[in-house]
Amino acid sequence: MALKVYLSGEIHTDWREQIVEGAQGLDVSFNSPVTDHAASDDCGVAILGAEDNKYWHDHKGAMVNAIRTRKGIADADVVVVRFGEKYKQWNAAFDAGYASALGKSLIILHGPDHAHALKEVDAAALAVAEDPKQVVDILRYVLTSTLPS
Amino acid sequence: MALKVYLSGEIHTDWREQIVEGAQGLDVSFNSPVTDHAASDDCGVAILGAEDNKYWHDHKGAMVNAIRTRKGIADADVVVVRFGEKYKQWNAAFDAGYASALGKSLIILHGPDHAHALKEVDAAALAVAEDPKQVVDILRYVLTSTLPS
Amino acid sequence: MALKVYLSGEIHTDWREQIVEGAQGLDVSFNSPVTDHAASDDCGVAILGAEDNKYWHDHKGAMVNAIRTRKGIADADVVVVRFGEKYKQWNAAFDAGYASALGKSLIILHGPDHAHALKEVDAAALAVAEDPKQVVDILRYVLTSTLPS
Amino acid sequence: MALKVYLSGEIHTDWREQIVEGAQGLDVSFNSPVTDHAASDDCGVAILGAEDNKYWHDHKGAMVNAIRTRKGIADADVVVVRFGEKYKQWNAAFDAGYASALGKSLIILHGPDHAHALKEVDAAALAVAEDPKQVVDILRYVLTSTLPS
Amino acid sequence: MALKVYLSGEIHTDWREQIVEGAQGLDVSFNSPVTDHAASDDCGVAILGAEDNKYWHDHKGAMVNAIRTRKGIADADVVVVRFGEKYKQWNAAFDAGYASALGKSLIILHGPDHAHALKEVDAAALAVAEDPKQVVDILRYVLTSTLPS
Amino acid sequence: MALKVYLSGEIHTDWREQIVEGAQGLDVSFNSPVTDHAASDDCGVAILGAEDNKYWHDHKGAMVNAIRTRKGIADADVVVVRFGEKYKQWNAAFDAGYASALGKSLIILHGPDHAHALKEVDAAALAVAEDPKQVVDILRYVLTSTLPS
Amino acid sequence: MALKVYLSGEIHTDWREQIVEGAQGLDVSFNSPVTDHAASDDCGVAILGAEDNKYWHDHKGAMVNAIRTRKGIADADVVVVRFGEKYKQWNAAFDAGYASALGKSLIILHGPDHAHALKEVDAAALAVAEDPKQVVDILRYVLTSTLPS
Amino acid sequence: MALKVYLSGEIHTDWREQIVEGAQGLDVSFNSPVTDHAASDDCGVAILGAEDNKYWHDHKGAMVNAIRTRKGIADADVVVVRFGEKYKQWNAAFDAGYASALGKSLIILHGPDHAHALKEVDAAALAVAEDPKQVVDILRYVLTSTLPS
Repeated sequence: MALKVYLSGEIHTDWREQIVEGAQGLDVSFNSPVTDHAASDDCGVAILGAEDNKYWHDHKGAMVNAIRTRKGIADADVVVVRFGEKYKQWNAAFDAGYASALGKSLIILHGPDHAHALKEVDAAALAVAEDPKQVVDILRYVLTSTLPS
Repeated sequence: MALKVYLSGEIHTDWREQIVEGAQGLDVSFNSPVTDHAASDDCGVAILGAEDNKYWHDHKGAMVNAIRTRKGIADADVVVVRFGEKYKQWNAAFDAGYASALGKSLIILHGPDHAHALKEVDAAALAVAEDPKQVVDILRYVLTSTLPS
Repeated sequence: MALKVYLSGEIHTDWREQIVEGAQGLDVSFNSPVTDHAASDDCGVAILGAEDNKYWHDHKGAMVNAIRTRKGIADADVVVVRFGEKYKQWNAAFDAGYASALGKSLIILHGPDHAHALKEVDAAALAVAEDPKQVVDILRYVLTSTLPS
Repeated sequence: MALKVYLSGEIHTDWREQIVEGAQGLDVSFNSPVTDHAASDDCGVAILGAEDNKYWHDHKGAMVNAIRTRKGIADADVVVVRFGEKYKQWNAAFDAGYASALGKSLIILHGPDHAHALKEVDAAALAVAEDPKQVVDILRYVLTSTLPS
Repeated sequence: MALKVYLSGEIHTDWREQIVEGAQGLDVSFNSPVTDHAASDDCGVAILGAEDNKYWHDHKGAMVNAIRTRKGIADADVVVVRFGEKYKQWNAAFDAGYASALGKSLIILHGPDHAHALKEVDAAALAVAEDPKQVVDILRYVLTSTLPS
Repeated sequence: MALKVYLSGEIHTDWREQIVEGAQGLDVSFNSPVTDHAASDDCGVAILGAEDNKYWHDHKGAMVNAIRTRKGIADADVVVVRFGEKYKQWNAAFDAGYASALGKSLIILHGPDHAHALKEVDAAALAVAEDPKQVVDILRYVLTSTLPS
Repeated sequence: MALKVYLSGEIHTDWREQIVEGAQGLDVSFNSPVTDHAASDDCGVAILGAEDNKYWHDHKGAMVNAIRTRKGIADADVVVVRFGEKYKQWNAAFDAGYASALGKSLIILHGPDHAHALKEVDAAALAVAEDPKQVVDILRYVLTSTLPS
Repeated sequence: MALKVYLSGEIHTDWREQIVEGAQGLDVSFNSPVTDHAASDDCGVAILGAEDNKYWHDHKGAMVNAIRTRKGIADADVVVVRFGEKYKQWNAAFDAGYASALGKSLIILHGPDHAHALKEVDAAALAVAEDPKQVVDILRYVLTSTLPS
């Protein structure tokens, strides 16, 4: 068994790197959204032409990013969604809902403070973790039947 | 043509009532989540038995609420998702993603301050409105070809 | 909102009647398998001709019963599966898996003794109840936002 | 033609090894659930943290195991479900129902004593075998048109 | 429970009338292809203009008939396919395959002489009957749990 | 049998009225896009606010119209697409492709001059008509087995 | 572009070999049912145990063969169905219907004598050929844009 | 991440070559329809036999071309549809609608003069470009997070 994993959500800490590194040696391939914040915000106008109106500036970028996001989620067996300490992170919750409706196995990753606010999102998940290492442990267990020692 | 509309999201203002009232006379039927906050939080333990652990208290409730939410979205032609001024509202963004993956027509309703944070959600929508009256105007136009005078 | 509910599983106690009666006044319609044990076992040969071989006798009946079972589950919004104290009840677990793969909202109903043996089945459910009254309470809450007093 | 086969069910005898060994030389790849009973029971709490309540202990494990089970069944062309002599084995019947609803080719493997109790499950199958060697013979025939001599 | 039944296949005997009459009082609605052989052959050219070439004459008619056939099968819960004594009846077998791939409950109706030639078709069915009365008995049993006396 | 028919395409002649009138007495219900050209062009800005940029003016309107168009096609059994003498009519061809991918029964309506340019669209259809009366004749035949006299 | 092609139907002439040979050098992979008539008839009982009743003898074999047939059709981009001069060949027509409902590209291969009897089957096809060489020519054109010289 | 891209539409300029060349070094594979106009028009009759009637001449060709077109779109992650300056190009708009209903990421490529006529098609797209280089820039950004400098 090989797993395709999409890493959605928070882009300000190195949780993706921790998971990718921790999963070395496992038969997992990872995808994620563009995590360069500036590029992600401006890709629409940088490629397709400037917009006077900030709303359409944002809209063009969000649409271009959706090409990558949809492909990443559609191809995934497991979608990990990380909620960080700051910001609204509505795109993370949107991805979780989108992945859930497609029947993907969801792992939600967040600190205990967010537990109540995320209860509907957590309820759609097969695992709720606090720590990237736990996600790695799940991937290892799923692929090799080995529990952390 | 008749439309089934699901009203998801913020539960602290009367936006649902405004839409339902405004749509009187149109061939629309509405569904929504349970909007009684306390009942929604406690339904799991009230019906299925108390939990010592707050996480499982919340989880049981979120699962029971999902019976209604999933049915409401699955049956809908149009899903309206309202983001209010306060709170994380991750369940609203989750519903938007869930509805989007099912191919529902999405209308997102929020004030201009949230535009940047909601750009990925808005990008999945067929309309982005600021005011419940605009949602009513859309429903009227879709059903009767009549624009607001 | 109206709910279509399929009542699968154990046929030796009156749990279906308790739920149907308890749900009076709610906008619910119920379906269930044939609960006449003898008819259910013999329907295949009674209609389509006798079989010398017990295996094919059973097989013909199981196939005819599947016409009703599949239709009942396919049409349902909510599938309730009851595991009783006795018998293997593999058809109940089969129905739960079938309904789960179709994305139906599952409610599993069983006594605490079966909790460990049913953990994979319960894990696919939105609610796990011990008592038919709890199923009624869930249906009432989902349809009317009212908790048991 | 190559076949992906998922081996679900009983974990106390070496039936999986018999099939995998017997199928050597055929273009078949096998997947199965975690068959280490203790690891399978405890994976949830071992990775995601202890639970006081036995129900949630089990639940967390069952959810983590579902990541592997769902992937294994979703990827499979053929799902073999083995019912042993002992235990309730409701997860096996659940997997059979789940696989059936996804349109997988089912092979059910059990002794003659279980025939009546499994008649609904058998009725969803394309083959009912008593012996792992028969499963190997089916795979060989399907892939090479060769019957056992 | 109400059943929608599509009656496909042989058009030269009164088997449809026998079933419809026998099912009076049951909650069943029936659909069938156009059974007027001449109209069915000529509908394409009669409506859309003559063709010199017999192949396209037939083609235009078959396409127009497909509007009805596809709708009838898509809407059905149960598809009954009758094979008579004469003719190739490839459209009947095509309908059976089409219905099978859509997951419809199939009942195949034919005399014992055709059993070997129809074995692949029968293998996709939930019931194989020889007599229209048996189809009625199945419908009655599925809807009312009553076996023929 | 009752048919739901969506009438897509050209909005400058009375072909829809001819079909609706001709189909009186048949069990058909019709839907169509908004056919008021000005309202259809301006609905986005009239409801959701003006745009300086003509492109976004058009875009907002096209998105709002899509709520009606998608619902109309999704609900339909038969989609009739009319290509008139003038204009690009790319939305008509888009609707035909959209309906085709959803498996709807397509009827294409156009004059003989367009036959070569529409050959790929016609190839996806079950009928190609030149005259609204032919569409009525098809609907009558599909529903009542009656050919035009 | 690479094509997966399933060759269904008649097993008494060498049409499959002609197509496979003719397509050498093209990026095509072929699958087909078991074409050893005796093995195909007896596989069920040879592997799973003898049956006294000829009907169940046939049934067991047809079910085992369905494992291969369903996989072959499900994996295919193009399904070629050949109708020969003799026999009922209902399994060929069944495969055509099954493939059609799954949205596969169908090529039907038969002599002109069968045109009228196969008109509904042909109407579901993208090409109707008389000669295996024409099937090869289609595959070459689809993959390389080259017409036969 | 690797992308499969289908290049639909206009066949009279070298826009496909520009995109394929520009995307060298990226993990993209391209498909497209047959772009040899004469071969595309005549493939049906060249392979399957001449037709007297121009309509059926065209029809046979369009059907054979559909084998390639459907496969190309079904396999694609991204469908680019180019509208040129001339001709009706209804097949391009049809492909856009077909791809949209399958949930493919659409990029529409056209000059500003066509913006109003294409507004419904553009509204279904994730990007609207004027220049093949912009399509390359999107593919590079989606795959490598790099914006054009």
